[in-house]
Amino acid sequence: MCVASLVQASADGTGDDASPVFGVRIPAGYRDWQLISVAHEAGGLNDLRAMLGNDIAVRAFRDGTRPFPDGAIIARIAWRYEPSAENNAVFGQDQSFVAGAPTNIQFSVKDSTRYASTGGWGFGQFEAGRANLSEALMNTCSPCHARAPRDNDFVFTRYAR
Amino acid sequence: MCVASLVQASADGTGDDASPVFGVRIPAGYRDWQLISVAHEAGGLNDLRAMLGNDIAVRAFRDGTRPFPDGAIIARIAWRYEPSAENNAVFGQDQSFVAGAPTNIQFSVKDSTRYASTGGWGFGQFEAGRANLSEALMNTCSPCHARAPRDNDFVFTRYAR
Repeated sequence: MCVASLVQASADGTGDDASPVFGVRIPAGYRDWQLISVAHEAGGLNDLRAMLGNDIAVRAFRDGTRPFPDGAIIARIAWRYEPSAENNAVFGQDQSFVAGAPTNIQFSVKDSTRYASTGGWGFGQFEAGRANLSEALMNTCSPCHARAPRDNDFVFTRYAR
Repeated sequence: MCVASLVQASADGTGDDASPVFGVRIPAGYRDWQLISVAHEAGGLNDLRAMLGNDIAVRAFRDGTRPFPDGAIIARIAWRYEPSAENNAVFGQDQSFVAGAPTNIQFSVKDSTRYASTGGWGFGQFEAGRANLSEALMNTCSPCHARAPRDNDFVFTRYAR
């Protein structure tokens, strides 16, 4: 049963390295992808974040193509929101906030067939290179993105020119 | 005299499209460069910013090579720091700050010969694609960067892993 279960997991693209529910894995080379935009989430998240896209995603952002084509992947990288004592000493006031330790990385993967029941998007969250294996967490992704603008294909981020 | 002056300017790589003092121009394709890090400057700047690097700069950041090799270019893109009413409505609290209108773009260009008198770095600031022609502004770049860490080759930004 255990072996069968592992094989099943592998065939589904799930397992320790893939997100539950969606079977999303970390795409090779995502850190080299081009920049879509940046943001700061205050409150409990307390992060600075960058959204990067693979070639399909970035082209769609730049051209305004919606819905995003299958194969588009958006990487959201986040780091602790840290005041920079080093910078502030130079600037003479407390104004500078920089990227601290990484928190987690999320991927949104467009596949209108595989993820038809969740708006065509599959999701994954990774900490220190490993998938977060909480099904409960993964099941919060789609309901929240469903409240993002329909005319942006349920994506929160806009391209920063 | 006017023509002679223009010719001189062109030969120096200066003129309307180049920064005063340093003669830095907007590098082709910089918006496609890889991400170094992100930051928020509060106070008068009130921006969200992304630092991108050309291949030479990104490789040096990742490998820890200091001083940066000649040819390294760092692009600092900044946008207005804007609360996102759209995101906050979904999240149920005021927590989300996104990239608004672009403010300006700055480039730091490493050339240890040409810019020997300013730590090997030349600088430029561009608004809406045109060089800011203030010599006074350009003359603030080097004294400020001289106060950035020497062990980071007078660069404020650290690579965000």
